[in-house]
Amino acid sequence: MILPDGFYASGIRCGIKKKGRDLGLILVDGFACSAGVFTTNINCSYSVTLSKKHVKNPIKAVIVNSGNANCFTHKNGLKDTMKICLCLSEFLGVKKENILIASTGIIGKRLPLSKIKAAIPHLISNISRRGDDFSESILTTDTFPKMVSLKVNLKGKTVKIIGFAKGAGMINPFMATMLGFVLTDAKIKRSLLQKILVDAVEDSFNSITIDGCMSTNDCVFVLASGRSAVVQKDTDVKKFKEAIKKVLVGLARMIVKDAEGATKFIILKIEGAKTKEEAKRAAFCIANSSLFKTAMYGENPNWGRIVAALGAVGIKVGEKKLKILSSSLKKKEIVIRINLNRGKYAKTIYTSDLTPQYVKINAGYS
Amino acid sequence: MILPDGFYASGIRCGIKKKGRDLGLILVDGFACSAGVFTTNINCSYSVTLSKKHVKNPIKAVIVNSGNANCFTHKNGLKDTMKICLCLSEFLGVKKENILIASTGIIGKRLPLSKIKAAIPHLISNISRRGDDFSESILTTDTFPKMVSLKVNLKGKTVKIIGFAKGAGMINPFMATMLGFVLTDAKIKRSLLQKILVDAVEDSFNSITIDGCMSTNDCVFVLASGRSAVVQKDTDVKKFKEAIKKVLVGLARMIVKDAEGATKFIILKIEGAKTKEEAKRAAFCIANSSLFKTAMYGENPNWGRIVAALGAVGIKVGEKKLKILSSSLKKKEIVIRINLNRGKYAKTIYTSDLTPQYVKINAGYS
Repeated sequence: MILPDGFYASGIRCGIKKKGRDLGLILVDGFACSAGVFTTNINCSYSVTLSKKHVKNPIKAVIVNSGNANCFTHKNGLKDTMKICLCLSEFLGVKKENILIASTGIIGKRLPLSKIKAAIPHLISNISRRGDDFSESILTTDTFPKMVSLKVNLKGKTVKIIGFAKGAGMINPFMATMLGFVLTDAKIKRSLLQKILVDAVEDSFNSITIDGCMSTNDCVFVLASGRSAVVQKDTDVKKFKEAIKKVLVGLARMIVKDAEGATKFIILKIEGAKTKEEAKRAAFCIANSSLFKTAMYGENPNWGRIVAALGAVGIKVGEKKLKILSSSLKKKEIVIRINLNRGKYAKTIYTSDLTPQYVKINAGYS
Repeated sequence: MILPDGFYASGIRCGIKKKGRDLGLILVDGFACSAGVFTTNINCSYSVTLSKKHVKNPIKAVIVNSGNANCFTHKNGLKDTMKICLCLSEFLGVKKENILIASTGIIGKRLPLSKIKAAIPHLISNISRRGDDFSESILTTDTFPKMVSLKVNLKGKTVKIIGFAKGAGMINPFMATMLGFVLTDAKIKRSLLQKILVDAVEDSFNSITIDGCMSTNDCVFVLASGRSAVVQKDTDVKKFKEAIKKVLVGLARMIVKDAEGATKFIILKIEGAKTKEEAKRAAFCIANSSLFKTAMYGENPNWGRIVAALGAVGIKVGEKKLKILSSSLKKKEIVIRINLNRGKYAKTIYTSDLTPQYVKINAGYS
């Protein structure tokens, strides 16, 4: 998969995880305009703290490590993070404020600073126009790399969009719930790009849940190199926005499909809610119910658990009004359509089942 | 275990569950003064709806079925419930408003009305001064009956208190989270009894969580037959209140110990919170985190998950301030003490681990 014009990437092993690539780089030829959405977890990673500040600047590179969350690391956590950005920026002849950083992995362990600094020259010298190594370097318990690529025609020019993500566990909505990196060669203003990202995240990464646990490290970035068409006029904005959304929804679905230990991919469609907020509340109270999730694992149409979950968040459902339709629970992909019949709002989210394997993976991970 | 003066009980098999006793009765010689706390789930059982009304009346009997929640049963659900109360009341020569009813089991199935009505004479004729059969008849996935008994001396008279409970799954706080029946021979005003119950529930049944799922059927009743000492003066009220609380805490702990598939009993002590509410929020966000629960199953001190859980509910914890102390994770009973060091409020709750067995039980239950 060749990256959009203006981007290079690499992914190497530096020794943070027990095995596999664990340090990734996205490098911009020139500078990219960037947008970002971050976890709302108040005990967030130092990488999130720093990237929140840097994201408004022209971006030269993104450095990502897996295997260590760079969060709650006792003293010097923020300083370490700055040192990594500084080290990379000096190699690239820019300021540390032009670097974005993201981390994922264990909370509470200090980043191996010297290892990472020593690996940076190697990381840079390994760049290519392909994203494969990078897509591997950002994974933790994921079982496959997640990439989505798309082309959209704007004013006779082809705009490329490629997205990368890592997911697997600690996935819960109401923030960007994982790491996501989207690269495009479109030319676009930062403010517009940010708006498009926020909207697209709402229907993608903020519409998935695996275990109801909110991560300390989630962030999604979009970088635009500006090498292809300008996104400015209404029709182009609409087209571009749809394309970004498609990429994010594609990645979000892949995250749920790769949920830790999951055997089912569940598309949950709430209809007939009184308000937009109620539709979302209904969807997530069901998707986060351990009893609903275990019933799905057991291919067991125990719809009473849906009634209980809705009631727990104050949504009164009438016996004659509530309609639950489901595709076969025996299949790997299940569509459940729940009509509350009390209004006109709808919401679709993606979730997984809760399995003995999820418990085993998370009993052992550290 | 002999019941307090003025009470009789029975528990028989009527054929609602696949096996075992599934219909229970508490009978009062005369009438009892009663207090009740009910689930806050808005889609509650018809048994809850009716008992909420009846609890203010003098109580002649409590009828309980297991195996069917009497909830979301399409049409006639409330009528069926009234018919059961009416049938029992006619046998006992009282009004249906003098009967309390409670149910637990599958949601969405109509109660087998004729079976229950036919079993009522048998239920009555089986009464005795012992609570053993009753304690069995209220169970679903519980692996053992839950009874706690206590004596307290008031003005030279012995007041007896006996409590029964069923628990196992769908256990979450902020309401009475299971079925509980407490019998005492004390003489006490209804308003005072209600106040004592509400307070005691806060530190017992509202301080436990198993799976974060709120039931549609929970209720706790206290019935006072008035045969022994009067609870009126301040010192007596205090003594009686402490005794009731002890019984409820004892039952609550038994419920957590019998949590579906659990291998660990966890006592979670939050200290140093800014407010009472914050202490409770901190406790429950941790206890309901699937990642914390699976780590406990794995005997894995992954304290980063506590940081993440606290951050998700907006509790900022400093690296130098947060103190986590734990007894050995290898043992069956674990005490975890978490000092947030940001205030003076504390809260203790009881919870269990999340295990492959929990998933298996709930994948199959219907």
